[in-house]
Amino acid sequence: MAEANGPDYLDSLLERGLLLGTGQDGIYGRGADFEDVVERLDALIVRRWRTKDGAEPVRFPPMMPRRDIEASGYLHSFPQLAGTVHSFCGDMGEHREMLRCIAVGEDWTTNQKSVDLALTPAACYPVYPVIARRGPVPERGWLIDIASYCFRHEPSRDPARMQAFRMHEHVRIGTPEQILAFRTMWLERGREFAAELALPATVDLANDPFFGRSGEVLAANQRRQELKFELLIPILSAERPTACMSFNYHVDHFGQVWQMRTPDGAIAHSGCIGFGLERLTLALFRHHGLDVASWPEPVRRVLWDAA
Amino acid sequence: MAEANGPDYLDSLLERGLLLGTGQDGIYGRGADFEDVVERLDALIVRRWRTKDGAEPVRFPPMMPRRDIEASGYLHSFPQLAGTVHSFCGDMGEHREMLRCIAVGEDWTTNQKSVDLALTPAACYPVYPVIARRGPVPERGWLIDIASYCFRHEPSRDPARMQAFRMHEHVRIGTPEQILAFRTMWLERGREFAAELALPATVDLANDPFFGRSGEVLAANQRRQELKFELLIPILSAERPTACMSFNYHVDHFGQVWQMRTPDGAIAHSGCIGFGLERLTLALFRHHGLDVASWPEPVRRVLWDAA
Repeated sequence: MAEANGPDYLDSLLERGLLLGTGQDGIYGRGADFEDVVERLDALIVRRWRTKDGAEPVRFPPMMPRRDIEASGYLHSFPQLAGTVHSFCGDMGEHREMLRCIAVGEDWTTNQKSVDLALTPAACYPVYPVIARRGPVPERGWLIDIASYCFRHEPSRDPARMQAFRMHEHVRIGTPEQILAFRTMWLERGREFAAELALPATVDLANDPFFGRSGEVLAANQRRQELKFELLIPILSAERPTACMSFNYHVDHFGQVWQMRTPDGAIAHSGCIGFGLERLTLALFRHHGLDVASWPEPVRRVLWDAA
Repeated sequence: MAEANGPDYLDSLLERGLLLGTGQDGIYGRGADFEDVVERLDALIVRRWRTKDGAEPVRFPPMMPRRDIEASGYLHSFPQLAGTVHSFCGDMGEHREMLRCIAVGEDWTTNQKSVDLALTPAACYPVYPVIARRGPVPERGWLIDIASYCFRHEPSRDPARMQAFRMHEHVRIGTPEQILAFRTMWLERGREFAAELALPATVDLANDPFFGRSGEVLAANQRRQELKFELLIPILSAERPTACMSFNYHVDHFGQVWQMRTPDGAIAHSGCIGFGLERLTLALFRHHGLDVASWPEPVRRVLWDAA
């Protein structure tokens, strides 16, 4: 793999029509070949593990109640990445004023009102409050297969750092032992998955991009407790490989927030593993070339023939 | 089909786990069976018509540049339905104030800043500016296969009026003759599709829900010019059936906005046909029962066996 910075790789993807520019960094259309690979990866994840593991599929739209995001703690840790939904709630006079502002290029958005929705920041966030309403966590725990478009406000010309992207996750809720066994199993599966796709991967301890000065403490704690691992694949550089999967142990954080309890009355623990579908797709195009027809035969077999 | 108001049908869908409540009207999780039907409908639309018609698949995330929504005219016609994306852009002090507001239940959203993105109101809106950048419309015109989550700010307990829902469209750009031939063909296909799914459907002239007093004039014009037809299926009542497909002729509106021209130099015309995936799914559950295993054999064959 030749070295290239983000904008260079982005340009080659745009030239080939794999991504389509919209004029906003991190917001792209997906051309036929790019989307086909995303969909095949997604289908492969379903085909291989959903039935085998007995994971329950649940899907949400790319937005969720704002108060669930407030309760989740996301705004403590990542206020800069969150997106909220606002709408026009005025009368005809205010509408005329809005149109006047648009016509002369004045800012009309300060009159938009928050409508109690936030954009989904990671596919699993809407799951916990909905699952918590089912009552006590059963003995076997919960295992949910979830996928969704996610939003993070971080405009960038790095194609591996989109503002809107898809994440496919398995979410585990239960006892600490259940969560740790789940994560250990997926760390191994992640390595095997990358090998099967002929992608060079390493697994490493990681931390989330917590906001502000106190964020440094949170990041250090997360690393010390070994709560987050990532499967890293070089996309833009060999020195700074990109996280294409993550393996997370939330301890009892979501259990506390949503008061989820195991049958013995203890606060439930949770964890999730996530595939970054666009990032894995970018890694495949990076390592195997921009023409899917010339990808290595074993990789094509996994994605195309096994359906 | 027994009569039922929207909330009653919603309750039965929630009880069966077909939809999952989030506490926000019009924002639901999709349970395994509901999502499976949505995905099968979506796959059927692709399988049947994409290759046959030579439609180019393009996909966008559920948001798009705000200035494209401004240019499109959407905010003139439907300001009340549009959603814009806002984010926190402050420093650590402002973050502390945000967290204080959340903790005591004060409004913190007025400090969120617009980040130049709007939620996609209909699947085809992001397509026109991107296609326009390709230059002149070719002789054969453009035919795009597009699908996306869409947002409309209209909280309701009517399950057929969600705030976040999926639309699968074919978009045609070219001469007036090309657009009208496309729409005529799809009006027939729509009727056949409903019959195949054993859904009672009628096609009728329609208008969009334009905002305000001047909106009444726009709606009357739209009807007089026969620009919009809908395929209507009773979901909540026989008297007020629900639009599950629409067939739209935009005349030269988007051509003017994005300066798309046909080879003879004329402003291009455009049209689109759209499948409301959640609405079609709700119609199927309404007419064939909440247990997919007991759906009529011919319907099951179309959705399950033909894959």
